[in-house]
Amino acid sequence: MKFEIVRNRLLDGIGDVMKAISSKVANPILTGIKIEVDEKGITMTGSDSDITICTFIPAEENGEQIIKVVEKGLIVLQAKMFSEIVRKLPTNDVTIEVVNGLQVHIRSGKSEFHLIGSDAEDYPILPEMRDEYRFTFPADLMKSIIRETVFAVSQHETRPILTGVHWLSKEGNLECVATDSHRLARRITSPEGLSDVPFSVVIPGKSLQELSKILPDNAELVDIVIADHQVLFKTRNVLFYSRLLEGNYPDTSRLIPSEYQTSVKVNGKLLLQAIDRASLLAREERNNIVRFVADEGKAIEISSNSPEVGKVEELIEALDVSGEDLKISFSAKYMMDALKAIDGQDVFLHFTGAMRPFILKSVDDDSILQLILPVRTY
Amino acid sequence: MKFEIVRNRLLDGIGDVMKAISSKVANPILTGIKIEVDEKGITMTGSDSDITICTFIPAEENGEQIIKVVEKGLIVLQAKMFSEIVRKLPTNDVTIEVVNGLQVHIRSGKSEFHLIGSDAEDYPILPEMRDEYRFTFPADLMKSIIRETVFAVSQHETRPILTGVHWLSKEGNLECVATDSHRLARRITSPEGLSDVPFSVVIPGKSLQELSKILPDNAELVDIVIADHQVLFKTRNVLFYSRLLEGNYPDTSRLIPSEYQTSVKVNGKLLLQAIDRASLLAREERNNIVRFVADEGKAIEISSNSPEVGKVEELIEALDVSGEDLKISFSAKYMMDALKAIDGQDVFLHFTGAMRPFILKSVDDDSILQLILPVRTY
Repeated sequence: MKFEIVRNRLLDGIGDVMKAISSKVANPILTGIKIEVDEKGITMTGSDSDITICTFIPAEENGEQIIKVVEKGLIVLQAKMFSEIVRKLPTNDVTIEVVNGLQVHIRSGKSEFHLIGSDAEDYPILPEMRDEYRFTFPADLMKSIIRETVFAVSQHETRPILTGVHWLSKEGNLECVATDSHRLARRITSPEGLSDVPFSVVIPGKSLQELSKILPDNAELVDIVIADHQVLFKTRNVLFYSRLLEGNYPDTSRLIPSEYQTSVKVNGKLLLQAIDRASLLAREERNNIVRFVADEGKAIEISSNSPEVGKVEELIEALDVSGEDLKISFSAKYMMDALKAIDGQDVFLHFTGAMRPFILKSVDDDSILQLILPVRTY
Repeated sequence: MKFEIVRNRLLDGIGDVMKAISSKVANPILTGIKIEVDEKGITMTGSDSDITICTFIPAEENGEQIIKVVEKGLIVLQAKMFSEIVRKLPTNDVTIEVVNGLQVHIRSGKSEFHLIGSDAEDYPILPEMRDEYRFTFPADLMKSIIRETVFAVSQHETRPILTGVHWLSKEGNLECVATDSHRLARRITSPEGLSDVPFSVVIPGKSLQELSKILPDNAELVDIVIADHQVLFKTRNVLFYSRLLEGNYPDTSRLIPSEYQTSVKVNGKLLLQAIDRASLLAREERNNIVRFVADEGKAIEISSNSPEVGKVEELIEALDVSGEDLKISFSAKYMMDALKAIDGQDVFLHFTGAMRPFILKSVDDDSILQLILPVRTY
């Protein structure tokens, strides 16, 4: 194996696959990056066995030569060391050569590294994808969907299925739901090419977070392929594989109230900032609870009280309050997470009494729903 | 006590005094900020008992009113909470009022906080400074001097005196020296107003690092007042006190060689980058050692070898090599620290043999000297 490559392109590729690589893996070869070179270009692979990322750098792009392939071949190089070396090389021209089996030479300018690689034969092979369901999202929409749901997954392994986001296809819609059983986030979309055949999969929250870091902030299309135990997200030069969680996701549809006793319309950003301040004192306490009072006067009062530290009162003007007067208490953190997911727009808060779950929706957009369970303090 | 203040100015002041405040203090009142208000403005104080920072915000500046003082007074507020609250207040107008002794109200827009303060009588009084020696530096020069020396202080408490920087005044010069007994950094200056009376003090490295964060990057003058057990750095609105270390600093002047067997002139930035790369593999080993070979050919070779990982060779072109051929080994970290202190300029390396301390100097500036002890590997 021998090739010359533009350092910056190599670095970008390493940056992508590094997102899958963890130092805490059972199989030591997974601390390495697998590098495969042929006349078309180089493919690098990183994996922690839950997530696998493959990135391809073409030999030529838009008529510009990026890689000069002298000899085909493949090798595994320790990821952290390889990445640091490439980052610090003195010039933008890098030559990588494998000699005598596993000896790797990396040259750039007057700098020369000799590393000992690992045999690519020992690297796990990619999961085979029996292409069952396939559809398409623009990358920026995919990132929004992840941002709006993934924060609500459970952080505890007591119910492993809740650490994932449930993707449920029905009637041409894709419903993405996450819940940790104290709050729930739901986003409904209609992706391009979704067939009418229903499916239900649970994607680990961690995988979606890593995917989000790799996707570009533009409308480049992402192909999504769902198979038995794996999901694959394909962009132009990157393949992102994640295992799926096994088990049945609970039916969450019955949790969501459809009739309301009190409805409040308010600017999401003002509400977020007021809750952020109110929670400053609440944070000292066990569970970060704030109180929320709304009545026909349209002035919402948010307060918290921490006997050791002090108390805080916030008043904000609602755009509208309808229905019964309301006093309710909830986790400031859950409310802030939900408001951030809705992203500063005007929101509706719909309540069905102080002890029942309440929902948040954007005034302009019905596709995002956030649900929070209140806390008994009154 | 009652006053109204522009939030941004209050935040700046809090930012300054927070640098002295630590959560690890024996006296719990030191987790607070002392606030004193009179008709001239407000003074805030933070301290961890080693370092004390006082900052003054004038009621009026350049004809602009910054503070409206309604009632004089003083209080201590828990620093972290106070700082977070002020940072998140909704408007730029803040009113702070103390009622019934220790109850503090902080108001801004429709946000109102009620905190319980502590009695300012319990706050330690500032050290009294019996003004013994006094001189002046521009702030940017003061920061350079700190940057060029403080990294070389010892990180270990086995010889506490070496955790400080020795400031020695003789014949109108100030010599600042730091050493951890493996390397040494020295900077000589002639500050404005230094008297001929010699003095010798040792300032804790940590104090100088914190001071450096507070000083502006301009030529504003810093008054330095040295007393028996304290040093005070005064800028226009900030007083920075630090205790001095007790004990005798070792005489380091005899360590510095004055005759050389080999002298190398080389670009500091190129050398720094080459050593950085060479040390990538050395880092895996116990002590991060690189080898350095220079001869009349002017090509310097830097290399390291880590049997488990691989090896690296770097060649750089010296500007000049004179004297005997040299093979020497040293800590890559110490060399990189020293080169960073000299800041990318062309440097002289003066050697007196492979087992003797060697020195680095800027080609253009004789006032900075770095000394490193080599390591035996050949």
